[in-house]
Amino acid sequence: MSDEDGRVPLPRDREDDYSRSAATARAEFLSERTGAGLEHVGSYSFDPAILTGNVEHFIGVAQVPIGGAGPLLVNGEHAKGEFYVPLATAEGTLVASYNRGMKLLHEAGGVTTTVMDDAMQRAPSFIFPSAREARAFGEWLTENLEEIRAAAEVTTTAGKLRDIEQYSASRILYTRFNYTTGDAAGQNLTGKATQAACRWITENYEGIEHFFLESNFATDKKSSQVNMLRTRGKRVVAEATIPNELLERHMHASSELMFKARQVSNLGGFMSGVNNNGAHSANGITAMFIATGQDAAIVATYGGGTGLATQRECLEMLGCYGAGKVRKFAEIVAATVLCGELSLGSAVVAEEWVDAHDIYGRNR
Amino acid sequence: MSDEDGRVPLPRDREDDYSRSAATARAEFLSERTGAGLEHVGSYSFDPAILTGNVEHFIGVAQVPIGGAGPLLVNGEHAKGEFYVPLATAEGTLVASYNRGMKLLHEAGGVTTTVMDDAMQRAPSFIFPSAREARAFGEWLTENLEEIRAAAEVTTTAGKLRDIEQYSASRILYTRFNYTTGDAAGQNLTGKATQAACRWITENYEGIEHFFLESNFATDKKSSQVNMLRTRGKRVVAEATIPNELLERHMHASSELMFKARQVSNLGGFMSGVNNNGAHSANGITAMFIATGQDAAIVATYGGGTGLATQRECLEMLGCYGAGKVRKFAEIVAATVLCGELSLGSAVVAEEWVDAHDIYGRNR
Amino acid sequence: MSDEDGRVPLPRDREDDYSRSAATARAEFLSERTGAGLEHVGSYSFDPAILTGNVEHFIGVAQVPIGGAGPLLVNGEHAKGEFYVPLATAEGTLVASYNRGMKLLHEAGGVTTTVMDDAMQRAPSFIFPSAREARAFGEWLTENLEEIRAAAEVTTTAGKLRDIEQYSASRILYTRFNYTTGDAAGQNLTGKATQAACRWITENYEGIEHFFLESNFATDKKSSQVNMLRTRGKRVVAEATIPNELLERHMHASSELMFKARQVSNLGGFMSGVNNNGAHSANGITAMFIATGQDAAIVATYGGGTGLATQRECLEMLGCYGAGKVRKFAEIVAATVLCGELSLGSAVVAEEWVDAHDIYGRNR
Amino acid sequence: MSDEDGRVPLPRDREDDYSRSAATARAEFLSERTGAGLEHVGSYSFDPAILTGNVEHFIGVAQVPIGGAGPLLVNGEHAKGEFYVPLATAEGTLVASYNRGMKLLHEAGGVTTTVMDDAMQRAPSFIFPSAREARAFGEWLTENLEEIRAAAEVTTTAGKLRDIEQYSASRILYTRFNYTTGDAAGQNLTGKATQAACRWITENYEGIEHFFLESNFATDKKSSQVNMLRTRGKRVVAEATIPNELLERHMHASSELMFKARQVSNLGGFMSGVNNNGAHSANGITAMFIATGQDAAIVATYGGGTGLATQRECLEMLGCYGAGKVRKFAEIVAATVLCGELSLGSAVVAEEWVDAHDIYGRNR
Repeated sequence: MSDEDGRVPLPRDREDDYSRSAATARAEFLSERTGAGLEHVGSYSFDPAILTGNVEHFIGVAQVPIGGAGPLLVNGEHAKGEFYVPLATAEGTLVASYNRGMKLLHEAGGVTTTVMDDAMQRAPSFIFPSAREARAFGEWLTENLEEIRAAAEVTTTAGKLRDIEQYSASRILYTRFNYTTGDAAGQNLTGKATQAACRWITENYEGIEHFFLESNFATDKKSSQVNMLRTRGKRVVAEATIPNELLERHMHASSELMFKARQVSNLGGFMSGVNNNGAHSANGITAMFIATGQDAAIVATYGGGTGLATQRECLEMLGCYGAGKVRKFAEIVAATVLCGELSLGSAVVAEEWVDAHDIYGRNR
Repeated sequence: MSDEDGRVPLPRDREDDYSRSAATARAEFLSERTGAGLEHVGSYSFDPAILTGNVEHFIGVAQVPIGGAGPLLVNGEHAKGEFYVPLATAEGTLVASYNRGMKLLHEAGGVTTTVMDDAMQRAPSFIFPSAREARAFGEWLTENLEEIRAAAEVTTTAGKLRDIEQYSASRILYTRFNYTTGDAAGQNLTGKATQAACRWITENYEGIEHFFLESNFATDKKSSQVNMLRTRGKRVVAEATIPNELLERHMHASSELMFKARQVSNLGGFMSGVNNNGAHSANGITAMFIATGQDAAIVATYGGGTGLATQRECLEMLGCYGAGKVRKFAEIVAATVLCGELSLGSAVVAEEWVDAHDIYGRNR
Repeated sequence: MSDEDGRVPLPRDREDDYSRSAATARAEFLSERTGAGLEHVGSYSFDPAILTGNVEHFIGVAQVPIGGAGPLLVNGEHAKGEFYVPLATAEGTLVASYNRGMKLLHEAGGVTTTVMDDAMQRAPSFIFPSAREARAFGEWLTENLEEIRAAAEVTTTAGKLRDIEQYSASRILYTRFNYTTGDAAGQNLTGKATQAACRWITENYEGIEHFFLESNFATDKKSSQVNMLRTRGKRVVAEATIPNELLERHMHASSELMFKARQVSNLGGFMSGVNNNGAHSANGITAMFIATGQDAAIVATYGGGTGLATQRECLEMLGCYGAGKVRKFAEIVAATVLCGELSLGSAVVAEEWVDAHDIYGRNR
Repeated sequence: MSDEDGRVPLPRDREDDYSRSAATARAEFLSERTGAGLEHVGSYSFDPAILTGNVEHFIGVAQVPIGGAGPLLVNGEHAKGEFYVPLATAEGTLVASYNRGMKLLHEAGGVTTTVMDDAMQRAPSFIFPSAREARAFGEWLTENLEEIRAAAEVTTTAGKLRDIEQYSASRILYTRFNYTTGDAAGQNLTGKATQAACRWITENYEGIEHFFLESNFATDKKSSQVNMLRTRGKRVVAEATIPNELLERHMHASSELMFKARQVSNLGGFMSGVNNNGAHSANGITAMFIATGQDAAIVATYGGGTGLATQRECLEMLGCYGAGKVRKFAEIVAATVLCGELSLGSAVVAEEWVDAHDIYGRNR
């Protein structure tokens, strides 16, 4: 069955598209047309009915290997104690490297974590015939925050409109509608709430030439200076104090040399225009996020992929499935990241450290 | 069995840690200690023996649902014709949205793709007692490129050292060793080759105070201005020409309004300091990368996770498994991204478009 | 008379160092030691007594040539009507180029200007033993704004502490103390007020490990993303509508081609990481600022160099000397910048425009 | 005498516009129309005839007060020995602050300076119907460098086309034509040479849709990441080693506290997106540039404003006027900047340093 222009889309089951048979039909269609066997893709252990709202045209699964790391010792406000962390990855040494960091920091007394800020946003822009009208609208926006909040919050129980930031350029007013979103990542929630708010705004304010629900100021799924400054998601700090002796014993590095390396890499990052001055946080975050069904870069313990079969099990392994757990989960992610930073950071200097000891004598 | 400090690590099988029994032992250990059932995580269809080099402390898999999108019509230099694209995701509407864009661009005649550049790097920094010595070293580096290349390429058959870029700051010389890496993503390859090169350098050049194999100038797993300027991985352009009539019919948007929205979001992105001016390329890239076993942001058709069970099937579905396919794969990824950009880009303006037609009459 | 280490500093007059004789003594000293004649430097028309607070070790003046441009037609809220603009520069064609833009925009009906925001800041950072203590301090800061404001405003009549922004990183709380500063540029004023505020803070809050009055968050004399987002000085928008016919007649360019050029240069600027997407605003701003005694990038009509002999005359030429004029002056600067942008922007495309007409016929 | 639209431009002398009488006529015209006296502006000591090529519609001068700082001790490759530095400014304490730093570094043995790189550019962009054609053009550009160089260098004796960098985006090829420019700043020189090169290119290469001589990739008069990476003008490093004892005695600061402050301000600058991680280099650079007739941010000892009356005297004071002096001048500027950085940097920590000593005893 092809489109008007001869294009043959994947078959769909109009009765029940979230069934094994529908998935199998699609997989067979694909095997036929592409020659690829899809036996492994077709091997999954759950009922596709749970996928409603998570994926369309389901054909099977990617089986991403999970390695276990830990125990990770966390001294958080929400996460307290030891955790075994599931890391879904195909990058050799990643799990071992994070595990090595966890061992080091366990011996050093654990990782202290603090959630510093929490905000999710949608960022509509409003265009006016001239800058003066944009400025006037900005003042009106400030004055009418209560009513805008009411209009937004009609659409959600979990989301609360915290504030609206304004950024002015030309005859455009860019805004950021900042929400707290409870246990959900909140991207859909903030979208709907802001859409409702914008509807109220356009009905109650005359003279908006155009508005767009998004104009690169929430910078969803992208890194940005504004999000580094103003927070998107959870802002968590992970801290630890590590005796030099532990670094030397476990990491074959010294704190002095690691500090020096950090100086050089911070300057390097400033020049290269890098989006964060860490070593490889994306490695650990992505691996935890795939394992636990998170959306890229935004944590949640409810909604999204968190309820899928393996993903839910991984959240449960951390004691983080369900209501009231999102900050706990965010703290564990941050603590995990710190372990990986230390592990890679020390590996970078270890060779020189070894060389130095060869030269200066300790290894002779 | 616990560490000296009472820490209990995951059990390992000293005989054969890449076996079902070793994985099961670990899963049971975790279930016991955390109370989480790991039935689904333990459901996988392949022999863990294939995981050597991909993961440590294997406990099972994340089953990430894959939706099929397509057919996508690509007019590339390497990818030619129709492709069905596997997208591993738990974000509802993502597959449908990319599919919608593929349908539009199919009818518009397909996506033209061009690989513009290809480079993978490791970026050592060299520190000297003073700037003048750093400058002298830079000159020596240029003069001795051939020998450095020889030293680097001893370690690899696929990797070729293309050139060494120099960036100077203070008494540090930052470098980028740029390689082509054949079908591999090449991160390990470039690491080993550059390490060998640095060994040759430090043996043949006196007066280097320190060197670090990496100092935030390759910006691996991070976005950066230097990589936007100089390329890390494959730089691919995807192009299409879309009649306004198609946009109106399929996307309920107009090219004029989409262009206007793009103006506003480009300015927004400049102000917000966003790392790319697109809409949500990370969504499609991540979904394809999970499905096909890629490392974050870097494509390969050989090595890494590309040989795993489901991942290989997904590459085969695209006709991209194995030797000589990496540029073809990169072109399909780029074409997929364009479809998603158009789909989300038009959704952003669609509401206003609909409103505009309500007001101005076409929808009355 | 030399220092202990043989260094011979410039002579100073302990009685009256702001006199012609003191200046002449220094100039003669310099001539003797360097062989340079300083006749022109020594030619100035004012009494050095007025320089107290503006310069130390006065030796004479740089005579920077001023060209007059205009009339510039401004439709501001504070600047209304025609202005002749003094531009101090040694860059040939600069005055002519700005003048050309003023002519164009005069015929187009003038430049509409709007002051969108107004803030001057000092940005102390506070360091704590841990992130949690930094977070607690941030909450305390919010709760005690009134008392902090009182402590700050004791030191100034013109300055008002508008708000304190907080930016969190690691165990540091960066802040921006935002002030309005009346007719003064306000850099000293904000420094003193914030110092007083910090003294109050450190006396009333225990547990601050260190604080620094400035840590690269006010980014004085530097461009930064945070200032583009949040304003330092006056944020002014200048707007005009120009019929294509005028562009073609005066600028030998077309609005279509200029728009196309702007698209390309905006993308170029995004990639190159430029600090603003204009053409050459620094040219006009610097020339006006030298003429009128401004500090780099920050406007004032009172204090600083605005009362010096020639500088005051130039401000008077604009009707901007003294109290209540700073927004008027800011509007004239913004309008001037727009004229220069159009003039250079059209010159960039003019050659191709001429070529296009040679090819396509209009010039045959 | 007014334009068609009633606009009254400044009077010009068709016989000789660079004369006292022409300048006086304009000044009188301005006084009449604006009510401002221009006695001081009209007080200058040179013959306006020398201004041809430097300014249009000359009306007089800005007399910017110059303070002398020094002696500054430089251990450069081009600048060797003691220098007295003219700083044109109206910002109180600026001269004293730089002078304080010069005194400190004199006692510490002087400032070592090194010119690391030297490049001036014009950055044309070339637009094609598609990315593939842009790529093909890039290859052609590389292959034809010799002929392009020849075409460019016909227009100049001082300028040498070093290389052409390529940056690819969409169907556009951005380039940077890098030149060395001898003693001139070289902005006009590179403009003319690149224009000639582009003419040769467009005559010898078919299929360029558009080209623009500049598209925000040279980022003239603007700071940018690409210029921080690749150099525009002279890249100079200034170094010094300062015993802590000197810092304590002269600056009332300690090297330990200054280092700590630098850590915090470097992180602050990374977050705020500042264009350079120094303290206030623009202060010293601008003051020296006004005194010596430089164009903003680009040094020269020949051409531009360097031959004007007072400006030439100031260059002569530094032994930097005329041929073969530009690197010497660049080194003196860099050394001056370092003195100012230290002076302000230590002032930022001095208060805490004093407080610390009050608390901990040294000042009791």
